[in-house]
Amino acid sequence: MNTRVTELFSIDFPIISGGMVWCSGWELAAAVSNQGGLGLLGAGSMTPDVLVEHIRKTKQATNKPFGVNIPLMNPNSATHIEKVIEEKVPVVFTSAGNPALYTQRLKDNGIKVVHVVANEKFALKAESAGCDAIVAEGFEAGGHNGKEETSTLVLVQQIVKAVNIPVIAAGGIVTGEQVFAMLSLGAEGVQIGSAFAVSKESSAHENFKQAVINSKEGDTMLFFRKLSPTRLLKGGFFTQVAEAEASGASKEELLALIGTGRSRIGMFEGDLEEGELEIGQVASLLNSPKTVAEIFDDIKSGYASARNRMLNL
Amino acid sequence: MNTRVTELFSIDFPIISGGMVWCSGWELAAAVSNQGGLGLLGAGSMTPDVLVEHIRKTKQATNKPFGVNIPLMNPNSATHIEKVIEEKVPVVFTSAGNPALYTQRLKDNGIKVVHVVANEKFALKAESAGCDAIVAEGFEAGGHNGKEETSTLVLVQQIVKAVNIPVIAAGGIVTGEQVFAMLSLGAEGVQIGSAFAVSKESSAHENFKQAVINSKEGDTMLFFRKLSPTRLLKGGFFTQVAEAEASGASKEELLALIGTGRSRIGMFEGDLEEGELEIGQVASLLNSPKTVAEIFDDIKSGYASARNRMLNL
Repeated sequence: MNTRVTELFSIDFPIISGGMVWCSGWELAAAVSNQGGLGLLGAGSMTPDVLVEHIRKTKQATNKPFGVNIPLMNPNSATHIEKVIEEKVPVVFTSAGNPALYTQRLKDNGIKVVHVVANEKFALKAESAGCDAIVAEGFEAGGHNGKEETSTLVLVQQIVKAVNIPVIAAGGIVTGEQVFAMLSLGAEGVQIGSAFAVSKESSAHENFKQAVINSKEGDTMLFFRKLSPTRLLKGGFFTQVAEAEASGASKEELLALIGTGRSRIGMFEGDLEEGELEIGQVASLLNSPKTVAEIFDDIKSGYASARNRMLNL
Repeated sequence: MNTRVTELFSIDFPIISGGMVWCSGWELAAAVSNQGGLGLLGAGSMTPDVLVEHIRKTKQATNKPFGVNIPLMNPNSATHIEKVIEEKVPVVFTSAGNPALYTQRLKDNGIKVVHVVANEKFALKAESAGCDAIVAEGFEAGGHNGKEETSTLVLVQQIVKAVNIPVIAAGGIVTGEQVFAMLSLGAEGVQIGSAFAVSKESSAHENFKQAVINSKEGDTMLFFRKLSPTRLLKGGFFTQVAEAEASGASKEELLALIGTGRSRIGMFEGDLEEGELEIGQVASLLNSPKTVAEIFDDIKSGYASARNRMLNL
């Protein structure tokens, strides 16, 4: 599985754990990096001080490369950028914003920069901005999502044809067979979110993890198509929001109904009725609680099985 | 590319052309079968007499196996079933209905039966009904679509784990790399729609084909989530329908607004303003008019390139 992505990050496997709000703390990031992948911290749900604490703890827990995901729309993002530079974090993934904003400054400080995109237009922008790689994240992904609703299968195929820098596939990926499939499209790595979000090392609440593990096909859906498309587990408070949206509620009405802090309430505090539960469409394929080591073992075994099947076809 | 699907249908490549309304007539089906794939006629837009005519013309144009797709919700479906039996069609794909309805009767007449599904529940039903194979068709597909909005990448992975009969992947597939990727997930064939819908041998109107070829990413969208989710090219009359739906119009209001015959008006008569233009999300990857032979050449070359890359990884 040696690709330009493993070379870029100096890792053994081109498998990256998404830097997810309320899930991706130092325990998860360090566990993934210790397995030979690239663990990301999720700055989106951290104050700058908390982020620094998690960076330092990650460094204590692993001597392997790791990274931080910084959503650029976050009010703390400018401070987050300064903190990762000060703390000499080797890799930064930026998302939800303009890749031209901080890429050069990060690169001037020796940091590898990857930007997350959901369409070809932003992939080209990220390449022009000097990013080292791109995450092409499809419709299946949990949390914030593209307005085009382009699936990973279509998006990755389109973006590998459009850019020259390495492409990391994301959205809908959990098995080793899927990792093999994404690399065969021309992606050079994968970013996996949901499976790590419910892993034992994730900092998410047990109630959230269990709800994901219990969920079946069709149990996640893209909500807020009018505001900012977001994939959530159905049910609870968000069924009311979806009903309001379907009955023609305005953006303002929807925002007022939602209020703030819903993802913390759901994913970190475990309130399944009132909270927002961000998870990808592969939730239906997650059927038991696993450690990061078990997730890596499953991926390696599925990858080998797909490889073997395809060599003999 | 030998799989249980090539054995089942006695074909050279596990590549099936979707039996699409207004596109899949005898010229397209015969051309696909002559390339070593399985060409399907689309009974959904044919009267029983027209279907018989196309079956006979297909037999004159190829001595290879071919099939007919019969949407079971079509008012003519019972007659279509009798006609394919009388005409000794070797393969029938059924869709949009209960697989228990006709599978046994078709099999008793020596016909191979495949049912199209968009979720695991119906995949298991189709297997119980005695189907020889299943098409797992994801969210990316043009035309009628599942309510769960499960993408091909997730759906195929889930269904190959759930059933023992061969799985044919559909939705979002156009390149040979994608065919390789689907087989590596455990699918044993692919059904390709959009690329053949705009091929030179398709019976669709040139205006429709050109509109698809000109379209960019994000230009198809799932419409009628309230009624029966259907992927269409954006624009024209259907933008008004989508706006009505988003403002909270009822099912009855939407149906009255749409009226009847819209897919004929759009896809067969070429009225891009008033017609319904069913096409998959891969429309953005279709950039020039091609013959069926050219489509097969592209697939074989992309497949070989993916295989070569993955063997050396």
